[in-house]
Formats: sequence, structure tokens, C-alpha cells
Amino acid sequence: MAVPELDAQETEQLLADHPDWSLGREGKAITRTFQFGDFSEAWGFMSRVALLAEAQDHHPEWFNVYAKVEVTLTTHDAGESGGLSARDAKLAASIDALA
Amino acid sequence: MAVPELDAQETEQLLADHPDWSLGREGKAITRTFQFGDFSEAWGFMSRVALLAEAQDHHPEWFNVYAKVEVTLTTHDAGESGGLSARDAKLAASIDALA
Repeated sequence: MAVPELDAQETEQLLADHPDWSLGREGKAITRTFQFGDFSEAWGFMSRVALLAEAQDHHPEWFNVYAKVEVTLTTHDAGESGGLSARDAKLAASIDALA
Repeated sequence: MAVPELDAQETEQLLADHPDWSLGREGKAITRTFQFGDFSEAWGFMSRVALLAEAQDHHPEWFNVYAKVEVTLTTHDAGESGGLSARDAKLAASIDALA
């Protein structure tokens, strides 16, 4: 089932609401990089995000190396071939609340 | 402090011992991709690897999207500008033992 994709105005609002995220993949995703003091801190953050992701049934694409975590949010079921949806806005807000 | 880099013969032995890993980054890293049934399983695996990494004080570079985990092992302190070391062989063996 396709999820409604954010239109241009909604995407602009998402970025305005979450200024630490930047648009990527030709507008189909948002990304934020987090830098922690060490792996233990980074992992603690990732563990909290993992719980959010399961609770929201919406999961990040993410990369971790030691104290750095790069989080990318996109909705594979949005639009024709993936894009941003309200699910990404919700998860971004939840992640921002942790950081 | 530089960590001794594996020589060609040692690298060959590493790949022979751990056939599920493939050489990448011009011989400076090894990678293995794991596919699980869902995020919960993938996260359980990642949590176990995180504990190994802290215990061995050697951490993976890894990417996760839902049920897939791509693990890359390299030693930033090895050789002139990073490469494979005995630390990668040890962590690969520990990860293989989980999988």
C-alpha cells in the first residue's frame, strides 16, 4: 500500500521544523549526523532510536563508525519509488527529542 | 601507535579462515553482509556485536537498513594509513561465531 508522499510545501515545513536534518537523494530522504564522545555513547543513542523505530514501525537507514552515527530517513512505500512521508517527520521529531 | 598491518600471506589466511568475508577498499578492509528476518533480529545481532566490539576495544563500521546489516572491519591505526590487522581477524572470528 503506497504511503502519501510529502509535497514540496510539506517537505519545506519538515526541514523548517527540523533544521538539523538535510535533504538528500534528490529530495527522497533526510539525513542527520550525530557525533558522540565514544562508541558507548553512540550505541546508547542508537539503542534508544531502535526502540523508537520498532514502536513506530518505521526504521532508519544508518551508518555507525565508533562515535559517529549517520541517520537517513526515507519511506520505501511512499509515492512511486520511495520518498519522504509523515512517518519520517514523526521519527525525525522523536530522534531530535533524544539528542 | 601503529598496529602491524597483515602482510599478503596473512591476509590470504584471514580470507581462507573466514570465507564469508570479502576484501574491500583495495585490501584495506573486509566486509560481510548479514540478512535477518526483520529489524528485531538484526538489532539483536548488532547488540551482540556491540558488546564484542567494546570488549575487544575494536569497533566495526556498519550500515543497517531494516533486516540487513553490512559490517566492515578495518584498523585505522594499522600501517601508514589504515589496513587490516590481527584485531580484524579476531573480531571477524567472534562475529562468525555468533552468526
